[in-house]
Amino acid sequence: MTLNKQVVLLVGGVGGAKLAYGLAKIVPPERLTIIVNTADDFWHYGLRICPDLDTVMYTLANRVNTANGWGVDGDTRAMLEMMRDYGEDPWFGLGDKDIATHLLRTQAWQEGQTLTQITQRLTKGLGIACTILPMTDAPVATIVDTVEQGELGFQDYFVRHRWQPTLRGLRLDGIEAATVSPEVEAALKAADTIIIGPSNPWLSINPIVSVPGMRELIEAQNVARVAVTPIVAGTAIKGPAAKIMGELRLEVTVKTVVEYYATLINGFVYDERDEDFHIDSIRKIAFDTIMDSDEKRILLAHRVLDWALGTSEGDTIR
Amino acid sequence: MTLNKQVVLLVGGVGGAKLAYGLAKIVPPERLTIIVNTADDFWHYGLRICPDLDTVMYTLANRVNTANGWGVDGDTRAMLEMMRDYGEDPWFGLGDKDIATHLLRTQAWQEGQTLTQITQRLTKGLGIACTILPMTDAPVATIVDTVEQGELGFQDYFVRHRWQPTLRGLRLDGIEAATVSPEVEAALKAADTIIIGPSNPWLSINPIVSVPGMRELIEAQNVARVAVTPIVAGTAIKGPAAKIMGELRLEVTVKTVVEYYATLINGFVYDERDEDFHIDSIRKIAFDTIMDSDEKRILLAHRVLDWALGTSEGDTIR
Repeated sequence: MTLNKQVVLLVGGVGGAKLAYGLAKIVPPERLTIIVNTADDFWHYGLRICPDLDTVMYTLANRVNTANGWGVDGDTRAMLEMMRDYGEDPWFGLGDKDIATHLLRTQAWQEGQTLTQITQRLTKGLGIACTILPMTDAPVATIVDTVEQGELGFQDYFVRHRWQPTLRGLRLDGIEAATVSPEVEAALKAADTIIIGPSNPWLSINPIVSVPGMRELIEAQNVARVAVTPIVAGTAIKGPAAKIMGELRLEVTVKTVVEYYATLINGFVYDERDEDFHIDSIRKIAFDTIMDSDEKRILLAHRVLDWALGTSEGDTIR
Repeated sequence: MTLNKQVVLLVGGVGGAKLAYGLAKIVPPERLTIIVNTADDFWHYGLRICPDLDTVMYTLANRVNTANGWGVDGDTRAMLEMMRDYGEDPWFGLGDKDIATHLLRTQAWQEGQTLTQITQRLTKGLGIACTILPMTDAPVATIVDTVEQGELGFQDYFVRHRWQPTLRGLRLDGIEAATVSPEVEAALKAADTIIIGPSNPWLSINPIVSVPGMRELIEAQNVARVAVTPIVAGTAIKGPAAKIMGELRLEVTVKTVVEYYATLINGFVYDERDEDFHIDSIRKIAFDTIMDSDEKRILLAHRVLDWALGTSEGDTIR
């Protein structure tokens, strides 16, 4: 039934990549577009690194290190060892194979190619048939304002400090100058459904919909716009979503997430471990959203898609 | 006897690095400066790579892959494997550890540091106590004109085509704009002897002395300026020196090398395997110049230095 429908997925890194993996197994590649957060991107040792794009790419190419959820399977760390010999303190996990990705990207970036073009070349090289698009071609950087350390670059906060500092605010450096790329615009306009992955709403999805014009473009699509919950049983499966919600003095519930997304979505998939809740004008349904195996990724992708496209018999509409 | 003498060595890559290693074992580090050819340097996958500097650094740091004479001992090739997965055809041997060197150099280069500053940081990081200087801070590129392929970048000629195309000419792109750095000038002016390593005269030494002002500066030093032969028993130990001499229609003899250096030197060390020869106003001596062990590197360094500084009893002066 998905053969003649265009599917667009919005994601950040590890959690979203799992749903992307499931969707890629059931949606024909020419009908699947994955729009990825790039506000985590940064320069490190002169390399342009796009952690979320890399995670999605490696996952879809069946090359991700499944223990971490990111990085290349079987990768080594010889370059980082040598950095230590040079007296460096490398805090970002750059695998040796992984570096090939960053070198190709950085070289093409310096030559003036757009991140969209660069990502196309990399996905093609990795044998990925569906389309992976950065949320924008402009450089955008999430800056995390913390109680203990003041403002930190995103990877500094997330990796170096293991998201332990207390977040008190966020800003997106460069977002005003960012634009929706023609490729993202075309994909959203052609979409038969727009799915928001179980990614961090504040850190991964908010940057995407903060690109000027993006939210309006998504909301203008008269299709099922369905988010999959990042909160399961009152907490986050992985990463700082629940911690951040507490720091922002938000109740760590599914309802908080739905209220945050507000008019962006018209449907929500929450986890069957959580209680039902009431919000006007939102369709919702409960599934098992934990994707701890390939089978469960595919099963959840199937269920979400069937429900979003209105072909599921088990719809819960209120 | 070397304790109070300043020694300057001019070299290219592998062969010269062996003599550098020997000298570094007997000359106090604050008295030894090694000036290295940088006309082999190039950009590859966005990295600034300086093959001769790297070879000298890795050799002096006791980290060189002794089987190759270049690269880091025990290095791996995971990055290159991944490049192949991306459909690339990587022809330059970038080891994973080696990449740390290129990343640090490229990042500092992009930040506007001079190659002299960058090399200082890298040598310090590798625990090298003597001074290694690039011949100039300006980018210079050897372009090899070949019969079969026309003009080739140096590494394209040397590595990709394994110096097999027939050389018919050489030019040094960017040499007019190059200048002798203050550090190189100071080292040469302070030198009690200037030694030219057993490097390729056309490919490694000529670029150094072609930096505007360099030849005049060297010739102005009223000290022993001694070259060690790159030709042994009528051929080159390694690399294309003899092949190039044939292609340039030069006789492959020690005398040809001495005539090429001309007024640059006033002393020459040839190999005891070769016949004596006559050239006016050149002191010369024959030693075993093959450095196939650490002991022989140190022994040759000792002999060359003693002879250059006039303390050797076995001088042959004519």
